Amino acid sequence: MIQVYTGNGKGKTTAALGLAIRAIGAGQNVYIGQFIKGKFSSEFNALKKFKNIKIEQCGRGCFIKKPVSISDVKCAELGIERVKRVIASKKFDLIILDEINVALHFKLIKISKVLVLIKNSLKNTEIVLTGRYAPKEIIKKADLVSEIKEIKHPYCRRVKARKGIEY
Amino acid sequence: MIQVYTGNGKGKTTAALGLAIRAIGAGQNVYIGQFIKGKFSSEFNALKKFKNIKIEQCGRGCFIKKPVSISDVKCAELGIERVKRVIASKKFDLIILDEINVALHFKLIKISKVLVLIKNSLKNTEIVLTGRYAPKEIIKKADLVSEIKEIKHPYCRRVKARKGIEY
Repeated sequence: MIQVYTGNGKGKTTAALGLAIRAIGAGQNVYIGQFIKGKFSSEFNALKKFKNIKIEQCGRGCFIKKPVSISDVKCAELGIERVKRVIASKKFDLIILDEINVALHFKLIKISKVLVLIKNSLKNTEIVLTGRYAPKEIIKKADLVSEIKEIKHPYCRRVKARKGIEY
Repeated sequence: MIQVYTGNGKGKTTAALGLAIRAIGAGQNVYIGQFIKGKFSSEFNALKKFKNIKIEQCGRGCFIKKPVSISDVKCAELGIERVKRVIASKKFDLIILDEINVALHFKLIKISKVLVLIKNSLKNTEIVLTGRYAPKEIIKKADLVSEIKEIKHPYCRRVKARKGIEY
């Protein structure tokens, strides 16, 4: 089943992390591929205590700025190849592709490649795609789509990102 | 700082769980008070492995149906008294009041009581309120509000709730 968390509000990656902890608690195996953010944020200090989770960098590990570089594209392509092998291994019950929607939006990855991945995944594997700007082709194929809308955000009041809350 | 996750889409409680795991990873102390759902779901099997989290039932532990019973109201009132002591203890950096918005919507708790709680909390304590139907008085006082909108949901296709994914 395919889940998408998109929109401009806070809660997309954290919702996926919540799914990860729920799946771990149910004894399932979880894979997280990070397409944008680096992996040295607080949540991974906690998650690495569990044996049934694997977290990997599937992109360059920083926020993407336009114009994107050849290095950005190459890293994302390698990331997709990695995810293809992860899905083919049939080892994981929950596969989270964090911020992949942003990588698709910036054309680092072809949408057709992700659609093939989705098509080839096992019916009982849960694939979760997060990030703003989820392309309509992905939304069309998804079983569950939540759009997280920003109603209020403290960044608008110039509050800086805080350790343990935003990262 | 006050965060609210509301709306009719999937991802509100899971976003709060993601915040919990992030805070745990940053060495912070986390409290989760559950105002509606029972606490024996998969995520708590995983979360109870950490020492710096406390999870308590602050309501009757089941979904509320109208008309609400006196027992529902009493349990929620005891829950709020408990949260008041939790906040006063100053032991917790992140306090999640899961599904409290629903308890407010069903008038199990007076909004004024929650507004007092928010007012009396320490400036650097993060208080997270989840659940559909967040009252406008709460949204007004919050620093961050995300509305999670259901764009697509498999329940509409009569897919049953699945262990490790929905609970």
